[in-house]
Amino acid sequence: MIEANLDDQTGEGLGYVMAQLLDAGAFDVYFTPIQMKKNRPATKLSVLGDPQARESLTKIILVETSTVGVRYQTWQRTIMRRHFIEVQTTFGAVQLKVATYDDIEKKTPEYADCVRLAKQSQVPFMTVYQAALAAADQADKEC
Amino acid sequence: MIEANLDDQTGEGLGYVMAQLLDAGAFDVYFTPIQMKKNRPATKLSVLGDPQARESLTKIILVETSTVGVRYQTWQRTIMRRHFIEVQTTFGAVQLKVATYDDIEKKTPEYADCVRLAKQSQVPFMTVYQAALAAADQADKEC
Amino acid sequence: MIEANLDDQTGEGLGYVMAQLLDAGAFDVYFTPIQMKKNRPATKLSVLGDPQARESLTKIILVETSTVGVRYQTWQRTIMRRHFIEVQTTFGAVQLKVATYDDIEKKTPEYADCVRLAKQSQVPFMTVYQAALAAADQADKEC
Amino acid sequence: MIEANLDDQTGEGLGYVMAQLLDAGAFDVYFTPIQMKKNRPATKLSVLGDPQARESLTKIILVETSTVGVRYQTWQRTIMRRHFIEVQTTFGAVQLKVATYDDIEKKTPEYADCVRLAKQSQVPFMTVYQAALAAADQADKEC
Amino acid sequence: MIEANLDDQTGEGLGYVMAQLLDAGAFDVYFTPIQMKKNRPATKLSVLGDPQARESLTKIILVETSTVGVRYQTWQRTIMRRHFIEVQTTFGAVQLKVATYDDIEKKTPEYADCVRLAKQSQVPFMTVYQAALAAADQADKEC
Amino acid sequence: MIEANLDDQTGEGLGYVMAQLLDAGAFDVYFTPIQMKKNRPATKLSVLGDPQARESLTKIILVETSTVGVRYQTWQRTIMRRHFIEVQTTFGAVQLKVATYDDIEKKTPEYADCVRLAKQSQVPFMTVYQAALAAADQADKEC
Ligand code: NI
Ligand code: NI
Ligand code: NI
Ligand code: NI
Ligand code: NI
Ligand code: NI
Ligand code: NI
Ligand code: NI
Ligand code: NI
Ligand code: NI
Ligand code: NI
Ligand code: NI
Repeated sequence: MIEANLDDQTGEGLGYVMAQLLDAGAFDVYFTPIQMKKNRPATKLSVLGDPQARESLTKIILVETSTVGVRYQTWQRTIMRRHFIEVQTTFGAVQLKVATYDDIEKKTPEYADCVRLAKQSQVPFMTVYQAALAAADQADKEC
Repeated sequence: MIEANLDDQTGEGLGYVMAQLLDAGAFDVYFTPIQMKKNRPATKLSVLGDPQARESLTKIILVETSTVGVRYQTWQRTIMRRHFIEVQTTFGAVQLKVATYDDIEKKTPEYADCVRLAKQSQVPFMTVYQAALAAADQADKEC
Repeated sequence: MIEANLDDQTGEGLGYVMAQLLDAGAFDVYFTPIQMKKNRPATKLSVLGDPQARESLTKIILVETSTVGVRYQTWQRTIMRRHFIEVQTTFGAVQLKVATYDDIEKKTPEYADCVRLAKQSQVPFMTVYQAALAAADQADKEC
Repeated sequence: MIEANLDDQTGEGLGYVMAQLLDAGAFDVYFTPIQMKKNRPATKLSVLGDPQARESLTKIILVETSTVGVRYQTWQRTIMRRHFIEVQTTFGAVQLKVATYDDIEKKTPEYADCVRLAKQSQVPFMTVYQAALAAADQADKEC
Repeated sequence: MIEANLDDQTGEGLGYVMAQLLDAGAFDVYFTPIQMKKNRPATKLSVLGDPQARESLTKIILVETSTVGVRYQTWQRTIMRRHFIEVQTTFGAVQLKVATYDDIEKKTPEYADCVRLAKQSQVPFMTVYQAALAAADQADKEC
Repeated sequence: MIEANLDDQTGEGLGYVMAQLLDAGAFDVYFTPIQMKKNRPATKLSVLGDPQARESLTKIILVETSTVGVRYQTWQRTIMRRHFIEVQTTFGAVQLKVATYDDIEKKTPEYADCVRLAKQSQVPFMTVYQAALAAADQADKEC
């Protein structure tokens, strides 16, 4: 994880650097509101990425933000195995990510599919999302 | 209350504007972390002040920040009556604000006094703060 | 809505006052992290309640917190009509809140029911929650 | 301003509703992190819009989120007059928003222009932004 | 410390998982508001626990939340030695945690005791808390 | 980095400890709003400092706050090389920090200089800041 505290960067500039880092292959980029000295509201930028990408991600941070340094550290991870399934709903087909670890299994409908079908059918996003979960649950029972 | 959402201002600049507004007589100035469109971490500036001061406080915000507009609104207030008492502690005299409303009374040691005595006696801030509260409580019982 | 900014109250004390306000009939109580002068991280307390309860809720705030005043203001509301239905899931019966407004209808499983059944059946909370939603959806289709 | 506190909505769903509200003509949509009862981290949704649009924006919130009600209130506003100017930089032409109020005037480079030129010239976003400000400042001096 | 970023979990579900983790023996569980890609307000879940409990705490997170992975890391700790004393106040007996490290000693009234006595005597929580601190301070002086 | 979660400390007390830690030589001190058990809004204190200063900074935290322990961990850092230049603006001389790393170079006007000149000339802080950046940019072009 690479982190930097930013008190002399605008929100606009931070939105831009998030996009740059994701384009460059960062796994995840997130902001945390923090409070720095001299009554400054600030933002902590956190970037998760491949260790091989540390140098290139760091350079994007140094180029695009006002910080003069970053700190970094390796975290270990426990990651569930993932594969995808597809289910049929009233609104169309939706992919679900199936994540497994030991005897744990859970399914998450793909955001992009739900958004597309919700707009197509002019129904709420959550209606498609729930329909996909229900269809996946039904499929499980039928096996 | 006057408010503005700021996504193109730095934390440094916001620390500066807080000082400017307090110097100009605002009762209270505070920041709230918010999240605006296009993935922008931003800050909501809130200023409480005398209705007569609205125009002058607004101008400071328009001059010193990047916002092109502010919103404002009147809130009603229930305010406790306040007077000050002084108590003696091992570390020296401390003023306490005594706030009353109906049958409610409560006392708060003055921050500046506690800071000064804590540094003078090289004890923790909270030690002086507690000593002042205990002394005030003792004084009450003796009456 | 009643609000107060608190910079000389502990988190412990704030957790306590939330419980007191809810017990006294507040509709909703929530905290927002804010940043006040002199580098103080602080908390804004917001209380939504019946206008008739304003005086009693204000007194709880003045008694239990360090603030010497509150501000308040009336908001208007658009509220959906609500009634409850019950559905059967594999894990037991779950109540759902059905909220309607014009042609909008949506259903939300009751938190307490889902928690109870999840613990009883030793399944994840979300499994019961989804099962309740799917059962409600199925019931709709059968009508 | 229309507001709703959301403790039974996912972040994914909230990102979606922000887009829906902006598409429907809301002036501004922002999220504030709040803390609700029963240890629930939650999000306050705030929507600024034309009074005429209140009903339609409210419906989007009721349809797309889990809330069963919204609160709303009118704020007054002080808005600077705005017009646009264009300046030439080494990287290309940039529009700036010029905001004026009494004797106050300030200029803000357009985000979209800066992003486009930064990517085109492969320079940092802030380099284009600063160049636009400097060019506008130079233009002022020459008049 | 075990951490996970959650953008497809509700606040309700997060309040539930905090309780599950504390029941399972986590030392501490806390939430941090973060901002993820695609305009998603999200929550970082952090869990502190015994290294031996890492696997079981991880499983609770994977079962009860929507995350497909957690990250973890060992921090070192400097912990004060603790013992408990009991003092008498006007409202009843209160336990205080006494923490010591080198020449540092500090006392903290137990939250549960203060809550119980405050409700019993119908006085503010802070009144009992201060009375306990003052009694402990008095006891110290008398030794 | 040294961290502590504080739920029984006031914002006033936290503002004080930030000053103490900076006076004692901490590189950086910042606060993050967090949410702890029992509905407690709390603050995470983070302190960056020289490894040699860890013991003394820890002692300040243990003395001045209510925590009974801190956690700490070493992060690695990538730091840009820095030197200072001075430029002339209409408002007076401003120092800029020039930070370099490989082929990256960026300049940041010194906050204290900008504040001093802004007050002296009664212009907005950002006007001085921008003037300094523009002057530095001009100087670069002339070389
Ligand atoms: Ni700086
Ligand atoms: Ni499969
Ligand atoms: Ni803007
Ligand atoms: Ni008096
Ligand atoms: Ni105060
Ligand atoms: Ni019905
Ligand atoms: Ni709910
Ligand atoms: Ni013009
Ligand atoms: Ni996701
Ligand atoms: Ni002892
Ligand atoms: Ni505690
Ligand atoms: Ni140089």
